[in-house]
Amino acid sequence: MNKPLILVTNDDGITAPGIRALVEVAQTIGRVVIIAPDSPQSGQGHAITITEPIRLKKARIFDGIDAYECSGTPADCVKLAKNVLLKNETIDLCVSGVNHGSNASINIIYSGTMSAAMEASIEGIKSIGFSLLDFSYEANFEAAKHFASIIIKDVLNNKKHNKLLLNVNIPRLPVNDIKGIKVCKQGEGIWVEDFQEGLDPRGVKYYWLTGSFRSDQAEEGTDLWALKNGYVSIVPSQHDLTNYTLIDAFKNLEN
Amino acid sequence: MNKPLILVTNDDGITAPGIRALVEVAQTIGRVVIIAPDSPQSGQGHAITITEPIRLKKARIFDGIDAYECSGTPADCVKLAKNVLLKNETIDLCVSGVNHGSNASINIIYSGTMSAAMEASIEGIKSIGFSLLDFSYEANFEAAKHFASIIIKDVLNNKKHNKLLLNVNIPRLPVNDIKGIKVCKQGEGIWVEDFQEGLDPRGVKYYWLTGSFRSDQAEEGTDLWALKNGYVSIVPSQHDLTNYTLIDAFKNLEN
Repeated sequence: MNKPLILVTNDDGITAPGIRALVEVAQTIGRVVIIAPDSPQSGQGHAITITEPIRLKKARIFDGIDAYECSGTPADCVKLAKNVLLKNETIDLCVSGVNHGSNASINIIYSGTMSAAMEASIEGIKSIGFSLLDFSYEANFEAAKHFASIIIKDVLNNKKHNKLLLNVNIPRLPVNDIKGIKVCKQGEGIWVEDFQEGLDPRGVKYYWLTGSFRSDQAEEGTDLWALKNGYVSIVPSQHDLTNYTLIDAFKNLEN
Repeated sequence: MNKPLILVTNDDGITAPGIRALVEVAQTIGRVVIIAPDSPQSGQGHAITITEPIRLKKARIFDGIDAYECSGTPADCVKLAKNVLLKNETIDLCVSGVNHGSNASINIIYSGTMSAAMEASIEGIKSIGFSLLDFSYEANFEAAKHFASIIIKDVLNNKKHNKLLLNVNIPRLPVNDIKGIKVCKQGEGIWVEDFQEGLDPRGVKYYWLTGSFRSDQAEEGTDLWALKNGYVSIVPSQHDLTNYTLIDAFKNLEN
């Protein structure tokens, strides 16, 4: 059997340590092609670039691995890979990350890492986003690599689901202290926002977004609970946003 | 009873005809505050601005209505409204649009219009995104206004659901030719992408995203079916992306 073709991308940019960790895992399992933004794209959500051109450049990151940096968003990267770079090949899996920081709970909505993974899944490519709960550049990715390897192999070997999309988060713990994996639902949480107000060098007022994540509902079964209790969380995710429980509540408008 | 406070935003920018149509409807129902991007933000998905400051400026768009233009994304606009502009008031409803072009089916994922609505819903503000299936600047918004009025009144008067989020799309038809409203699930569709390749004035290669929307599954019950058959579509939507049907399929990884 041929080696599976694994597309690796991220939102922290092609030079981030997190993508390096993911490539190190992926290259032990399949043939790897890297396409990632040429600059950090955190908070980009599912943005795509439609009003301006995108640039693509070969990058030398790992010996012997095809790598490209792209001026667009994480979702743009996946579109370019599917439709330009690898248009004559079948991509067996897309992995995105390892993100520096959590994408659990509501963070999936704002996440460039997860938007790349979701874009792949929309296009029919099985896809996994990985995030480590550590923002630091010097973060230790050993646990992330250990669990990424287990999950990637399981998806490639055992999971045939069309449009598969997993949101995987890894707690900031040494690998031996992690209790295992929990398959979860997305926990409810919210960013309690604050805007820092200031004056720029020309005396013009600005607002700068800041805030802290809060959750009062990290009950068992959620990704928030799993992470808090020392487990890796996997949330099977999807791009169907329909709230089926509310369809009947609006039927009155059909008359 | 006091007039309800209605926040109006969009992603086409504060000078787009679509937001004007929505304000005209909203001001007959409640007190309106407008905050919208100072430039078009289509395709922004749920992007937020975290690495640079945001600017906010008073705008004179409608006589007697508070309006602000913001340098950020649609989601930024809602965050600023909730946390800065209207932090001492209760926003009863957020309406976003009317978007110039469809946000049915998978387009909700890429949509700035719907990201503003979703941001409001995450913050506990009932929210509706409106989109008209007509990209033209000269689009006729009469049908959109007619149905927006009906739906806004129903939500304000009858619907108490926390985090309510509706994705409303209006076909490009005269109001009398529209058959009514259908409450739907999100249809499956995909953008078949193409990248136009070219050389810039300096001879450097670029890629420019283009593509066409395709759906083979516009079955009855979906927004795509409703729109094709002359109905306004309402898809109750949510920010919980969990694919509950797949949780069991990954339980093998818990061991």
